[in-house]
Amino acid sequence: MPLTSRHLLGLQGVPREDIQLILDTAVTFREVLERPIKKVPTLQGKTVVNLFFENSTRTRISFELAQKRLSADTINFSTSTSSTKKGETFKDTVKNIEAMKVDMIVVRHASAGVPQFLTKISNANIINAGDGAHEHPTQGLLDMYSIREKFDKLEGLKVCIVGDIAHSRVALSNIFGLITMGAKVSVCGPSTLIPRYIETLGVKVIHSIEQAIAENDVLNVLRIQLERQAGASFPTLREYHNYFGITTERLEKFNKDIVILHPGPINRGVELSSEVADGPYQIILNQVTNGVAIRMAVLYLLGTITR
Amino acid sequence: MPLTSRHLLGLQGVPREDIQLILDTAVTFREVLERPIKKVPTLQGKTVVNLFFENSTRTRISFELAQKRLSADTINFSTSTSSTKKGETFKDTVKNIEAMKVDMIVVRHASAGVPQFLTKISNANIINAGDGAHEHPTQGLLDMYSIREKFDKLEGLKVCIVGDIAHSRVALSNIFGLITMGAKVSVCGPSTLIPRYIETLGVKVIHSIEQAIAENDVLNVLRIQLERQAGASFPTLREYHNYFGITTERLEKFNKDIVILHPGPINRGVELSSEVADGPYQIILNQVTNGVAIRMAVLYLLGTITR
Amino acid sequence: MPLTSRHLLGLQGVPREDIQLILDTAVTFREVLERPIKKVPTLQGKTVVNLFFENSTRTRISFELAQKRLSADTINFSTSTSSTKKGETFKDTVKNIEAMKVDMIVVRHASAGVPQFLTKISNANIINAGDGAHEHPTQGLLDMYSIREKFDKLEGLKVCIVGDIAHSRVALSNIFGLITMGAKVSVCGPSTLIPRYIETLGVKVIHSIEQAIAENDVLNVLRIQLERQAGASFPTLREYHNYFGITTERLEKFNKDIVILHPGPINRGVELSSEVADGPYQIILNQVTNGVAIRMAVLYLLGTITR
Repeated sequence: MPLTSRHLLGLQGVPREDIQLILDTAVTFREVLERPIKKVPTLQGKTVVNLFFENSTRTRISFELAQKRLSADTINFSTSTSSTKKGETFKDTVKNIEAMKVDMIVVRHASAGVPQFLTKISNANIINAGDGAHEHPTQGLLDMYSIREKFDKLEGLKVCIVGDIAHSRVALSNIFGLITMGAKVSVCGPSTLIPRYIETLGVKVIHSIEQAIAENDVLNVLRIQLERQAGASFPTLREYHNYFGITTERLEKFNKDIVILHPGPINRGVELSSEVADGPYQIILNQVTNGVAIRMAVLYLLGTITR
Repeated sequence: MPLTSRHLLGLQGVPREDIQLILDTAVTFREVLERPIKKVPTLQGKTVVNLFFENSTRTRISFELAQKRLSADTINFSTSTSSTKKGETFKDTVKNIEAMKVDMIVVRHASAGVPQFLTKISNANIINAGDGAHEHPTQGLLDMYSIREKFDKLEGLKVCIVGDIAHSRVALSNIFGLITMGAKVSVCGPSTLIPRYIETLGVKVIHSIEQAIAENDVLNVLRIQLERQAGASFPTLREYHNYFGITTERLEKFNKDIVILHPGPINRGVELSSEVADGPYQIILNQVTNGVAIRMAVLYLLGTITR
Repeated sequence: MPLTSRHLLGLQGVPREDIQLILDTAVTFREVLERPIKKVPTLQGKTVVNLFFENSTRTRISFELAQKRLSADTINFSTSTSSTKKGETFKDTVKNIEAMKVDMIVVRHASAGVPQFLTKISNANIINAGDGAHEHPTQGLLDMYSIREKFDKLEGLKVCIVGDIAHSRVALSNIFGLITMGAKVSVCGPSTLIPRYIETLGVKVIHSIEQAIAENDVLNVLRIQLERQAGASFPTLREYHNYFGITTERLEKFNKDIVILHPGPINRGVELSSEVADGPYQIILNQVTNGVAIRMAVLYLLGTITR
């Protein structure tokens, strides 16, 4: 049974069966990653373009590895080499790339809605690798995969997303996906970083980090944008850490099996103490490994849909 | 029957049979591009280096896709990572790359004659991807392919190249190739952008865009270098558009089946109105698709010549 | 018989049998490079990451070609696209990349010891592609390969390393490797560029270039860092050339079959006259070709060790 859509633009509105299918397919690819030969011929002869209008190390490499392990041909396109500098419209740039008979486009862009726009002008399968503060669906999926791997279920789990909810595409993708899968989602952070509409999504707001630890099975701790936020949304990084930083001391107060996720890159001593970042509660590097498997699953499922 | 030369430096002096062979070979590869699996094993185990000393999105990606679809191994080299910064001579840089046993070099450079120079210092097959204002032969070939696809012939067709003829490698490659194939070539543009010698190539000069439309079957409309020319070769972009811009209004005056080409990137509202750029006369995105097929044909024909 | 170590961090302490095995294996791959199809399936399904924190054209391309010719999947990571900009620690960056199930990491870094550090935090095979002024073992190996190819032995040969010994990772890798293989090693250069401890490594110091020519079978002439050294370690480049530059005149005084190596990029007219750089004594481009074979051998030997 194929996916409902031939694109992955976000997790909002994606049916439970589709998320289930992606997570289950990723289990197979996760096993492939443990083999000496990590390559399968599934997408041989297909071309995938990575269209990155924002810098990204880990997401780009994770997608590129997923593509190569599926035997797809990969083209990297980044703004630094772009014709957009030459006054060409974004639409013309994309239509040109697509005219070269590209099968799939993985796109990251600072503006929300760009992946959606691409589906209008291109016949390729579009995968959103992060659009502004909107969605980052493969991150949401790999977070769900990592949680499910730990608890063997998502249904009924309590997950709190901690930090900068307002500017986070990771937060939104987690919220949409987790709620669809039957988890109970809350958010925790400075009130300046929690959007007012968030409760309308079915999300509880918690303002104390200790309450967040007490009430939840999982904390998904988001990255603070150092360059942008200190002094604006909160007074100092130290103050942020004092109020919302996850430390061993805080975690051990509650003597429970809580699981810590972080999408990376980590600011040690800000969102997480270094001890927590390397400690027994976190599954951060599992997330990274699972990310490759999730991206392989998404590329496979979209790439083998007959048009 | 192989090509006469083991390099493609330009279309000047290339025999009709060779151009015919490339265009005919490209027909086969054009069909491959419509298949679900767009890959053939033809150049497996061959190494192609893309040596780009000028930025280029579409040409580099088009060549890279052509190489990957022929199963060649591809290495990208651009000035940003170059040893030329370290005081090494250009010749030493190229001889070093070639000593790594490279089979083919695709080169773009701001100086005319660089690809010719490479044939003197390298044993690899050299393909010119644009050298200064000299030639851009694969662009000329893909333009001819696209015209032939539309009219089923080149012989006797009337083709006018519009715009900045003086600084254009696309113009020269079109002129040499089209005349060899029996087309009648004219140019049209501001007199500041038409070199005096052009008539010695067998090319007619037209100064009115309406006359150009009236007399021709095809207009190949070149890109204006925004950064360089406005205020120098002509007063303003608006003035350029008023005198030489292609608009629906202008085209419809003549009620004929004219075909519009443009090598891209387009400056909408300058060379072409947006309506024309997306309209029924133009075949711009066909050119892009055909470009991959032409490059596959050239790589294949040069790469399988026995040395 | 496999190598003693599963990493190649340097040539210091590497047993004679291991160097022998690498050089002998490279002979086979050197032959592969002369075939029309230069590709073997040895590392199919393995992933190699090229982690370059310093710019490098030739070393990066040489490794990438070696990887592709062994059918490995290659990911390029350079600082320009790195998360290290986002405040992530170096260790976290590497652990993240490794969590994507990478088999081998080729690393270049401005700080000595980084490759050694990577072996502590990663399960991948680590290959040092140059760490600060410490070692550049594949350069040492390709130099030894090129010398052995010329003389059919290393044992008993007299090799002098000329130039900036103090800041050179190439010098140290040559010294360690050549001494292990039974060659007699000396160094020659301005006293400001010869470290005091060098004699403790079993190396003779020569201050006259003519004496160096007279006494040796091989000169391995290092690159002068133009940007850094003129005016600091010696008065001017002209002065350096006058005292230590290799010229045909100097070489012909001795009427002997001396062999000149240079790791490139060459500063013509500084370390070598242009005549020598292109002349009959030097084997510089052989070194480049042999470099690909050596890197294939190292990747093959490390990549097929069972963990």
